[in-house]
Amino acid sequence: MKAVVIHAPHDLRIEEIAPAPAPGPGEVRVAIARGGICGSDLHYYHEGGFGAVRIREPMALGHEVSGIVAGLGAGVRGLSVGDKVALNPSRPCGECEYCRRDMRNQCLDMRFNGSAMRMPHEQGLFRAEVTLPAGQAVRLSPETDLALAALCEPFAVCLHAVGQGGALLGRRVLISGSGPIGCLAVAAARLAGAAEIVVTDIAAPPLRIAAAMGATRCIDLSAEAAALEVEKTGKGRIDVVFECSGAAPALRTACEVVRPGGQVITVGLGSEPQFPLSLVVSKEIRLAGSFRFDHEFALAADLIDRGRVDLSPVLTGVFPMEDAIAAFDFASDKAKAMKVQLRFGGD
Amino acid sequence: MKAVVIHAPHDLRIEEIAPAPAPGPGEVRVAIARGGICGSDLHYYHEGGFGAVRIREPMALGHEVSGIVAGLGAGVRGLSVGDKVALNPSRPCGECEYCRRDMRNQCLDMRFNGSAMRMPHEQGLFRAEVTLPAGQAVRLSPETDLALAALCEPFAVCLHAVGQGGALLGRRVLISGSGPIGCLAVAAARLAGAAEIVVTDIAAPPLRIAAAMGATRCIDLSAEAAALEVEKTGKGRIDVVFECSGAAPALRTACEVVRPGGQVITVGLGSEPQFPLSLVVSKEIRLAGSFRFDHEFALAADLIDRGRVDLSPVLTGVFPMEDAIAAFDFASDKAKAMKVQLRFGGD
Amino acid sequence: MKAVVIHAPHDLRIEEIAPAPAPGPGEVRVAIARGGICGSDLHYYHEGGFGAVRIREPMALGHEVSGIVAGLGAGVRGLSVGDKVALNPSRPCGECEYCRRDMRNQCLDMRFNGSAMRMPHEQGLFRAEVTLPAGQAVRLSPETDLALAALCEPFAVCLHAVGQGGALLGRRVLISGSGPIGCLAVAAARLAGAAEIVVTDIAAPPLRIAAAMGATRCIDLSAEAAALEVEKTGKGRIDVVFECSGAAPALRTACEVVRPGGQVITVGLGSEPQFPLSLVVSKEIRLAGSFRFDHEFALAADLIDRGRVDLSPVLTGVFPMEDAIAAFDFASDKAKAMKVQLRFGGD
Amino acid sequence: MKAVVIHAPHDLRIEEIAPAPAPGPGEVRVAIARGGICGSDLHYYHEGGFGAVRIREPMALGHEVSGIVAGLGAGVRGLSVGDKVALNPSRPCGECEYCRRDMRNQCLDMRFNGSAMRMPHEQGLFRAEVTLPAGQAVRLSPETDLALAALCEPFAVCLHAVGQGGALLGRRVLISGSGPIGCLAVAAARLAGAAEIVVTDIAAPPLRIAAAMGATRCIDLSAEAAALEVEKTGKGRIDVVFECSGAAPALRTACEVVRPGGQVITVGLGSEPQFPLSLVVSKEIRLAGSFRFDHEFALAADLIDRGRVDLSPVLTGVFPMEDAIAAFDFASDKAKAMKVQLRFGGD
Repeated sequence: MKAVVIHAPHDLRIEEIAPAPAPGPGEVRVAIARGGICGSDLHYYHEGGFGAVRIREPMALGHEVSGIVAGLGAGVRGLSVGDKVALNPSRPCGECEYCRRDMRNQCLDMRFNGSAMRMPHEQGLFRAEVTLPAGQAVRLSPETDLALAALCEPFAVCLHAVGQGGALLGRRVLISGSGPIGCLAVAAARLAGAAEIVVTDIAAPPLRIAAAMGATRCIDLSAEAAALEVEKTGKGRIDVVFECSGAAPALRTACEVVRPGGQVITVGLGSEPQFPLSLVVSKEIRLAGSFRFDHEFALAADLIDRGRVDLSPVLTGVFPMEDAIAAFDFASDKAKAMKVQLRFGGD
Repeated sequence: MKAVVIHAPHDLRIEEIAPAPAPGPGEVRVAIARGGICGSDLHYYHEGGFGAVRIREPMALGHEVSGIVAGLGAGVRGLSVGDKVALNPSRPCGECEYCRRDMRNQCLDMRFNGSAMRMPHEQGLFRAEVTLPAGQAVRLSPETDLALAALCEPFAVCLHAVGQGGALLGRRVLISGSGPIGCLAVAAARLAGAAEIVVTDIAAPPLRIAAAMGATRCIDLSAEAAALEVEKTGKGRIDVVFECSGAAPALRTACEVVRPGGQVITVGLGSEPQFPLSLVVSKEIRLAGSFRFDHEFALAADLIDRGRVDLSPVLTGVFPMEDAIAAFDFASDKAKAMKVQLRFGGD
Repeated sequence: MKAVVIHAPHDLRIEEIAPAPAPGPGEVRVAIARGGICGSDLHYYHEGGFGAVRIREPMALGHEVSGIVAGLGAGVRGLSVGDKVALNPSRPCGECEYCRRDMRNQCLDMRFNGSAMRMPHEQGLFRAEVTLPAGQAVRLSPETDLALAALCEPFAVCLHAVGQGGALLGRRVLISGSGPIGCLAVAAARLAGAAEIVVTDIAAPPLRIAAAMGATRCIDLSAEAAALEVEKTGKGRIDVVFECSGAAPALRTACEVVRPGGQVITVGLGSEPQFPLSLVVSKEIRLAGSFRFDHEFALAADLIDRGRVDLSPVLTGVFPMEDAIAAFDFASDKAKAMKVQLRFGGD
Repeated sequence: MKAVVIHAPHDLRIEEIAPAPAPGPGEVRVAIARGGICGSDLHYYHEGGFGAVRIREPMALGHEVSGIVAGLGAGVRGLSVGDKVALNPSRPCGECEYCRRDMRNQCLDMRFNGSAMRMPHEQGLFRAEVTLPAGQAVRLSPETDLALAALCEPFAVCLHAVGQGGALLGRRVLISGSGPIGCLAVAAARLAGAAEIVVTDIAAPPLRIAAAMGATRCIDLSAEAAALEVEKTGKGRIDVVFECSGAAPALRTACEVVRPGGQVITVGLGSEPQFPLSLVVSKEIRLAGSFRFDHEFALAADLIDRGRVDLSPVLTGVFPMEDAIAAFDFASDKAKAMKVQLRFGGD
């Protein structure tokens, strides 16, 4: 069967691999339908990794996928062949100090599909079929669109980030960066009742999508940076900033617009910026990192499944898996693409 | 009467100024007994200020003082001539958005004695006598040592910082920097029930004082940096770091020793360090600034007054106010001096 | 001009009172358009009050009103004659200990329109016109329906209650009692992102309105009490209960359905129930009262004004103010009426 | 070997039982030194149980014990024969929903020594020797007094309760009931930095012990109930009440003395009181139950071991285990006894 495998920077191959094994006890085999290309997939594609995480052996990419149950191992309950599912790519060990403290996203022995952090690498989900523990497959309704289902993972990241920001009902939120994570964070913040959602970026096209997701104000910093000044009124009027851009100046700007005692949640990674220490101290700003997700995957699936959110505006392209290279190139052009998906044919 | 007035960098004068006016309604006149030299006083002395705050006219220094009530204006209750008092140097407006939101340390119109932030500057308290609103004078017992009483202000800063860290009972705390704020933070953390209090510095003498204040472990990073490694075990074992040094590498070190989901409270100011974004995100570290104090001044006075804490180890020198220049020079030598006070003769 | 004035139990009069005075500096005169009848209005009507609060002199009722600005005193900004407004009936003193601690709903000298707590009573807003401090009038858009605008006050109560429950995104909520407060709490909980909203009552008609407001499950305890059992699964599966019924058995039921460590927010008043101490201790349940509102009035107005919520299902009757007695009688029949309003003709 | 076994109300026997088995892998055999008599032991003794928990077969009592390691099973690390240990009587399953959510004290399959909740009962620790999983034995220093070590369990209960109250530094605390739990809560609250600790009871002798533990004010409600009135000043001046008496009027009193928005933590069980709903709602009081402990057992052991607290004032009697009946009778007389211990001879 086919898989989308990275070998080295710019050496992405659609290659034949061994078929997914028959599911053992507690396992499930899933025919993949859709797979979204994430920023980390692009980092593997362009640079072979990020930070200390580097490709050291061929690895199938992908961790945002949906599919159809194709086979069940012994003892699996709650799933049937033919069910639509979203696949949770994270598999915490359940035994370490952090798993026991209800902090599974900090697991000391985490297996995360499509990540080169461990050696051997944990293979990704851009494969025609995968066999994995049934607990990683979340059942969806027959009516649910599998393209939207493949958004569960990045939406879970955003629900987790929003959770770090506490109760948002009636709050003023600013989201810096309107890539896929920024745009899905708009949906999450709106769902949590944020009264105002200001989004900033340095390009107009992604901001149009942020607006479609529910942003109440969009600011293109490349064209109208002065429009942000009003948010700095007094000592700042934003209750919670979600920093989703990873851009170097974004942290200082976040600290300028946030009110005293307000929060800055950093979601995006990038080069390490200077820390605006004097602003943080004098305004008693609270910053916190947000990393991946935990129970929010099931929540994302539930919200998408019941139609409580419409995430379709972020879907800006779908390619057959055979055209993965074209898809990766297209996804790399932020002016044209938001979330780009591959079609694997499992549906 | 005499005052200690800064005119320009290294131009500190003990000069004659007009006597403190008779107290008006609601005011009190206080004969100053002791005044502690703070890091910001030293910045005015050596560099004429810090950041954007610069001396633009002569200003009496000092905001850590105690004294004796020498006169009462009409309508003042709860104070009598002869009472020992600690003076709170902060006078929030009580009317602005932040005062109304119970965030007086963020007051948009704060008057803070001995600060060049406003123009005209708010004169400091290193004067033989001062007349000020009675609300700034906190009454103490006749038995209380006025040298300890002059520690209310910096101790309030530390109580406020400890409050930013939440419940510390049974927690593991690390305090970076064992200057006066670091050492008083040790006392505050111990009072709040911290189980372990690790203190780091780059010199041995201040660490000896930190130990006397209740630190359970002291690490001289200049001599035994490796001793810190054990605190980085797993993903870090410290629950809350109080960064009191303002040293550039301290923020990254704090993020290395703190456990996932733990807190880093930044108290000290200094040059702006690089932000360890990747650590903050992946470990979901929570950072927060701590700025001055509010109701903690009264708490500091109460704790000192009732002998619940013994802050005497930080007092390393007292000079007659006439020798203020010698006192400032001595206080600038971190190897010899911790908290240096001036004696004004009001007691 | 006309007002709806209570003199004694069942002695409600539509009577002529002196015209609203010309607005003084900082005041505004408002022609009342709509006024909603609240449960406390009904208590005055039927029993002359509740608890220790009793009618001791004639008092205009009403504290849920909207209207049109009819006159402006000197110095009023941000309002013009002809503006639609919602009137906030609470006027905290701004000076007491609680106002200074940002807890204005605990003001020691609160004036609340239409309350017999103080003597002389604070007259209510069921009057053709009222003159009051401009700060009590919140400006609305010209398009906003004044019937919905008169829901700002009870909706603010519910937004405040929801705020007591912390972040609700993805949470399972149960609301006991589907009267006006229960139904508006459904809207507030949904706005805050609650994943499930179970509503209980002892009658079917109000539950139909709860469903229209966004409840995901409605249980008529008079007909199908067993349907609640599933919520008690394990040690209980509800994250937050909002007790809006004031019914005696509701507190114990709340403690049975809430999960260990979950929250029970009591909004409704009624006879004092037995405290399920053993459940509270063994499950470590957190209970909290919710009382009126503060900044949530402005939030309610903003949400209604921008159409972020549709509260129209709760409006079940409108009567000309001349028919106030019929309106009060109709509002007293829970089987037929949810929120009943009076029309004052100001629009 | 000997054990203290309850057969029926007032049928407590010192009887011969089978020796503790040789420790299996991961187990430890401990010779018991001291065992404290708890309120629940007294309930079994006098009434055969409490609530729905009833003796249905003979059961050794006791869950507050210390001892000396007498034997080690295979694979046990960190313990040696001869070590002093405190025994944690709780053994959560580690697998259920609540264990996985870091809420082990809510374990659905908890085994707790000396509890008749399960059938067969989980035998208690009033035995000459016990064999149990090594994880239940917390190692102490050779210098630690085994009488104090046997206070780890009730002190852990109090540390957990104090943890429910959040940060106590500088707070005003009231503890109702000065039995062993109330007195140990005084120590815990003081350790957490409470500024004032008011204790109430209906008898003078236990209040004298509360004073010795660090209470700043003691009120004998049977003799000077009016002394409590000052705590009700304004709307109440206490920040956190710990209700440790289980007395019916205590909940209302707690709600009267606590400030608006303050907390009432209920630790004690007893007959179910009337709920002061109107006070809870109007003052927005936050109540929470506190149940047993989790990681606080290790903290209690550490604090006792390092001498950070002196709990000796609560020890008011020690009897040889052969005189257990006399010990139980003495412990039942609140006027004479606080914490009564049995001596098992293991030391």
